[in-house]
Amino acid sequence: MSAEDRLAEKLAELKTLLPPAPAPKGVYKPLVVVGNLVYTSGHLPIRPTGELVTGRLGAELDVHGGYEAARLAAFGILTSLRKQFGTLDRIRRVIKVLGVVNSVPEFTHQAAVLNGCSELLVYIFGPEAGVGARTALAAPTLPLGVPVEIEALFELEPPPPA
Amino acid sequence: MSAEDRLAEKLAELKTLLPPAPAPKGVYKPLVVVGNLVYTSGHLPIRPTGELVTGRLGAELDVHGGYEAARLAAFGILTSLRKQFGTLDRIRRVIKVLGVVNSVPEFTHQAAVLNGCSELLVYIFGPEAGVGARTALAAPTLPLGVPVEIEALFELEPPPPA
Amino acid sequence: MSAEDRLAEKLAELKTLLPPAPAPKGVYKPLVVVGNLVYTSGHLPIRPTGELVTGRLGAELDVHGGYEAARLAAFGILTSLRKQFGTLDRIRRVIKVLGVVNSVPEFTHQAAVLNGCSELLVYIFGPEAGVGARTALAAPTLPLGVPVEIEALFELEPPPPA
Repeated sequence: MSAEDRLAEKLAELKTLLPPAPAPKGVYKPLVVVGNLVYTSGHLPIRPTGELVTGRLGAELDVHGGYEAARLAAFGILTSLRKQFGTLDRIRRVIKVLGVVNSVPEFTHQAAVLNGCSELLVYIFGPEAGVGARTALAAPTLPLGVPVEIEALFELEPPPPA
Repeated sequence: MSAEDRLAEKLAELKTLLPPAPAPKGVYKPLVVVGNLVYTSGHLPIRPTGELVTGRLGAELDVHGGYEAARLAAFGILTSLRKQFGTLDRIRRVIKVLGVVNSVPEFTHQAAVLNGCSELLVYIFGPEAGVGARTALAAPTLPLGVPVEIEALFELEPPPPA
Repeated sequence: MSAEDRLAEKLAELKTLLPPAPAPKGVYKPLVVVGNLVYTSGHLPIRPTGELVTGRLGAELDVHGGYEAARLAAFGILTSLRKQFGTLDRIRRVIKVLGVVNSVPEFTHQAAVLNGCSELLVYIFGPEAGVGARTALAAPTLPLGVPVEIEALFELEPPPPA
């Protein structure tokens, strides 16, 4: 099954849609391609309605809410990839994920929160290609008050021969 | 107009100079070149006098002060590039910027602060090559109490044929 | 002297052993190789006994304790490299280190803490190849309450001709 098929299946299972692509800001791009690598910007958790999720882990949000926010951020990354390439099937594998969790000082379950992203990537790209290196961090606040921000680095499939 | 020309123009407009290159520390380098990529260290905001800017967003500094600090950190990155390559004209484009803003927990305008860096890079390298992916983060403190720390990844122009 | 020899010498000097390799988590890998680059996950400070170091800089830990934790995290990275390649001698050089220090808001000596990692890498890989770019950050908490988390990017030696 292709990554596109698995995405459709996961969206159906969750009875949800992909979030809209982030509005272009002029000072940064959702992603940049260099050779066979794709560097994404930090993505925020946006609902399919376009609404931003806000809140801090250990205060307004618990691990379950953070997990869902991390999954939304990952869906946003998939949206950016599909907007760029037309299909997820150009992605060969996940190289690295950097996830940052808006946390009160007592909160130490950043890994469990970011599994909302990582488990989605495993589902979409498979148990080998969907698993990259990962760094799970915390911050005392994040842009616009979101609970989690995630950037990722992907390797592309080589382009088909001309 | 070349990136070098635009740099001269911007410094004249702001009636300022580039900050001095960071003193070599022995345990890290201001930047490292691998193939056609340039990885920079996190740069701190240093004034042309060599003085470090300090303060936290939402406390000692407002967005305007943070914006200027982010611009100083970006000037520092340009200084490091010019020290390495002799000219900014070896830079093909910005790939990615990671900016971290020293923030009180209530502060959520990290993006506006980091525009001080991003808008300078757009000015210097142009509206296509100067715009990379970006991740805007927050921290509860930063080295030496600076308000912002920024690292960047650039792509180089291919070397001229021998 | 090879990196492997220097590692043995350093472990003997410190009368210690490498920490165990991190248990596979299923959603991320300790490192990923792409071409001649090795991207590591964020590594936590683990003692040779497998025990995790915890505490925050400026509270439970001072710079000396943080320095030792950063060195442990770096030993963990070396463990991951040796598990992957069998030997450190496949590493050509350090490209970049991102280190994040669990810090109270008043703590500003993140650079001194991360020298625990950087000075070990210099010792193992030498004063040129062991020195990369570096970004030293702070966080209000980190996964499992550790004082420091470190990821690194390395360049590999080209494989020997077949």
